[in-house]
Amino acid sequence: MMILEYVPPGKQEADRLIIDMGLRFPEEDTPGIDFIIPNASYLKGKERTIRGIFITHGHYDHMGAIPYLAGPLRNPPIFATPLARGMILKRQEDFPHTPKLEIHTIDKRDRRPIRLGPFSVEPFHVNHNIPDSIGLAIGTPLGTVVHSCDFKFDFKPIGDEPADLQRIAEIGSRGILALLSDSTGVEHAGHSISESVIFENLDPIFREAPGRVIMSTFASLIGRQQQAFLLAEKYGRKVALEGYSMKANVEIAQGLGYLKIPKGMMMPIEDAERLDPKRTVILCTGAQGESNAALMRIANREHRVIRIREDDTMIFSSSIVPGNERSVQYLKDALARQGARIFHYKTLDIHASGHAYAEDLKLMLSLVKPKFLIPIHGQYSMLKAHAELGQSMGIPREYTAVGYNGAIIEFNRERIQVRDEQIQAQYVFVDGLGVGDVREVVLRDRQMMAQDGMFVIVAIVDRREGRVRGEPDVISRGFVYLRESGPLLAEARKRVKMLVEQSGKMKPVNWTYVRDNIREDLGKFFFQKTQRRPMVLPVIIEV
Amino acid sequence: MMILEYVPPGKQEADRLIIDMGLRFPEEDTPGIDFIIPNASYLKGKERTIRGIFITHGHYDHMGAIPYLAGPLRNPPIFATPLARGMILKRQEDFPHTPKLEIHTIDKRDRRPIRLGPFSVEPFHVNHNIPDSIGLAIGTPLGTVVHSCDFKFDFKPIGDEPADLQRIAEIGSRGILALLSDSTGVEHAGHSISESVIFENLDPIFREAPGRVIMSTFASLIGRQQQAFLLAEKYGRKVALEGYSMKANVEIAQGLGYLKIPKGMMMPIEDAERLDPKRTVILCTGAQGESNAALMRIANREHRVIRIREDDTMIFSSSIVPGNERSVQYLKDALARQGARIFHYKTLDIHASGHAYAEDLKLMLSLVKPKFLIPIHGQYSMLKAHAELGQSMGIPREYTAVGYNGAIIEFNRERIQVRDEQIQAQYVFVDGLGVGDVREVVLRDRQMMAQDGMFVIVAIVDRREGRVRGEPDVISRGFVYLRESGPLLAEARKRVKMLVEQSGKMKPVNWTYVRDNIREDLGKFFFQKTQRRPMVLPVIIEV
Repeated sequence: MMILEYVPPGKQEADRLIIDMGLRFPEEDTPGIDFIIPNASYLKGKERTIRGIFITHGHYDHMGAIPYLAGPLRNPPIFATPLARGMILKRQEDFPHTPKLEIHTIDKRDRRPIRLGPFSVEPFHVNHNIPDSIGLAIGTPLGTVVHSCDFKFDFKPIGDEPADLQRIAEIGSRGILALLSDSTGVEHAGHSISESVIFENLDPIFREAPGRVIMSTFASLIGRQQQAFLLAEKYGRKVALEGYSMKANVEIAQGLGYLKIPKGMMMPIEDAERLDPKRTVILCTGAQGESNAALMRIANREHRVIRIREDDTMIFSSSIVPGNERSVQYLKDALARQGARIFHYKTLDIHASGHAYAEDLKLMLSLVKPKFLIPIHGQYSMLKAHAELGQSMGIPREYTAVGYNGAIIEFNRERIQVRDEQIQAQYVFVDGLGVGDVREVVLRDRQMMAQDGMFVIVAIVDRREGRVRGEPDVISRGFVYLRESGPLLAEARKRVKMLVEQSGKMKPVNWTYVRDNIREDLGKFFFQKTQRRPMVLPVIIEV
Repeated sequence: MMILEYVPPGKQEADRLIIDMGLRFPEEDTPGIDFIIPNASYLKGKERTIRGIFITHGHYDHMGAIPYLAGPLRNPPIFATPLARGMILKRQEDFPHTPKLEIHTIDKRDRRPIRLGPFSVEPFHVNHNIPDSIGLAIGTPLGTVVHSCDFKFDFKPIGDEPADLQRIAEIGSRGILALLSDSTGVEHAGHSISESVIFENLDPIFREAPGRVIMSTFASLIGRQQQAFLLAEKYGRKVALEGYSMKANVEIAQGLGYLKIPKGMMMPIEDAERLDPKRTVILCTGAQGESNAALMRIANREHRVIRIREDDTMIFSSSIVPGNERSVQYLKDALARQGARIFHYKTLDIHASGHAYAEDLKLMLSLVKPKFLIPIHGQYSMLKAHAELGQSMGIPREYTAVGYNGAIIEFNRERIQVRDEQIQAQYVFVDGLGVGDVREVVLRDRQMMAQDGMFVIVAIVDRREGRVRGEPDVISRGFVYLRESGPLLAEARKRVKMLVEQSGKMKPVNWTYVRDNIREDLGKFFFQKTQRRPMVLPVIIEV
């Protein structure tokens, strides 16, 4: 999510546009979190200055936070192309209690700019791994700002038009103040691969498959799904869909005309287990090894219908999202062990990135010829590499600005700078129904318990006698195997009893001090005996 | 760890050789585990039949379990090349209470086979990313078995000899019954990259670095370290080492003559911050983003000496071990933000795998010409791909055998098969001082607490009145942010009080039933309110 502000000369208050409103998926150091949404606290009190929200395409990392943020921001008008709009409305169905959105459909053929306060916005078509993606040329009183959004150039895409190079060139020829351009692919040399190359590589796999073709890809990769349907038609196969998000997206994309499926081509999943394998394609989700997706259930022989056979051909038509390497490997092993032949992007070009590579980025710079370059999207090291690429194309170093999450990049006609101060940008975690209520301390506790578990010890102290009644109760989870740790637990109980009774003699008893004492003593004792550091939680109750 | 057994005709008891004894590093689903060692329970009672242990090279995944297993197996003789021997003895220093090992040094120039019972073993030199790696030709009464171990062919390595192709060919020409060959690189087409190509790519980086060169690589990658020393010498730079394991390995390798360091080249790390940056190289560990390694401390500005400067050149001369992608990205971002220029294997060939690629594997097959092919090392899908590669080279399918962890592969002169039964092979976890005491249940608890935390509630019940005394105590960690969850906790307390007092009326009270009841009720209540599933642990104490 990005905010574009224009502050008129001599005034304090700005006009604002928001570009995208996505979510981020959880990482190893955010255990148990569902996802992360942008921190919008900077916009509090500024809701009336938001002229509009532009959603550049229908991926969750660009529109997934709308159900959480649109309402609190008082529902500014949202602008999106038809497919993105369809995806937004579909997602909104899961949030029945949020206010109705005001969505305007962008018609890319309409050349009239969308005027919103001091801004006039001209969307232009780019390629990405979902159809109907756009970049934005935003006119402002100071000059035009071009935002590439996630993009690549595909001169021969499948199920989409090529990026509108002439339009981008025409916009560029008017003189551009700043280009904000996608940096995700900057570390790859050359040009990204065209979907038509992928199609050519998929063709012989479909042709020569001795039995069923089971193809998995991202649910949002409509263009790749189109290829599966085209190849199924070519080789006389029918297609069964599997996976909730795949089915939902195919329905939206087909309904809006982005996906062309020949009549009579679809079949229920049951038929894929029953009919002639040489006439069968299964198109499914789960190529990332997600534990609940269709493919994992198939691999684990837990799918309600599909069982892998020796003559099955599996196609992983996707890259591996960093962090998923191991679960994808598990998936591949489990499928291979059941006899399936596997094709994936390492063995063959059957997946293309949705992002421009280094030479594509140079093409964008050459078409737009901006004064300032602001690399966007991607990790800091990629933004920096993109700025260096711009410098190699002749943009002076002081005309490039590398930001970070929360950075304020300020520019006028003459100068650009990353300001020293920043806006609030710490992660807002969504965990179940809670939005923003899980803080660092909760995550730190989860991480600590994941390492060495926890150990609760409950001692009941007789107020008058200052003695522990009976044996302290122990709850230990994730620390040691209880059945074999009798002596360790007995010794821990003994130590607690002793510590409590020693302190119990002093009047009045400082129970906070006693608890700290127990925590420290047991911590040391456990570490010495096991070299582990469970979370030690003493409970002392006086009766 | 692999066991080679020979069962003489008509006898029950076998003679055994062990090949390698390594450890496996922990994964996402084994939180808090230090590492995993082989399950040796199959060898219990068979200790006297073990003729020897061959360690093929000095990497932890091939020798790291020796301190845990050699003693319990009654210390069979270990055979290793000098460098592997040095690494084994160094590691042994951390285990002062284990029995002294019996290690025999393998002299690769000595062509006489090592005779052990019915086996005669001839080691031969191969390349890998540590010098002094060997494969084994093992004569048995049924024929010769060749074990490639981790290998690649490097016709021009640095700090090592090329693999001994003539020797391998000569062994092959005698007629080989079975080849066990490394499958790790099978999914990569072509040949693996030579270290001399890496060297040529590193040269201009050293030459043109405007300030210091900070090069990180694996501590065991002696050949790469040699390149840093050669380039430092060429460009008049001195070298400071950083990282415990790097220093230890350099010392061992230098002492044994595997690493040649010019006199006066080394300097203390303090000098690397003080002297002319153009005369300085820092060679360090931590290229995987390990949280305690030198590089992470430098990136976090927590290193006791080194601070990154604008003109520093960072070289990541390593691949990324799957699972470490995110921490490596964090590292690169943190370093880039401080101004360093970064080179890594994606931008330039400055790292080579230690494993043979598809064409190299074909070369090995062509030199050895075995009857049977047993793919080893790597995930199941790689073993399968390697078997298919062998089939494409003319080995009949029924002469290839794809195993798995715990598989028994049985062969004689005529036939090879994977037996239906398998030996015990479930993971043995090392966690702190505990070996094998952490079981699945402990890991499951850790994973569960990492997801949604835990909730302990302690109720003191008055035995006579059947009432809860005061308010139940609550300990919650990793579940909700306590400061903002007062009403939730109050309601939970109220429910527990009610449940206990309802049940307390029945005599005698079944407290197990009451606890289960509380667990279920609070579980549902929390899920309804938060959509989270913390581990609920009720404690009821009668007084």
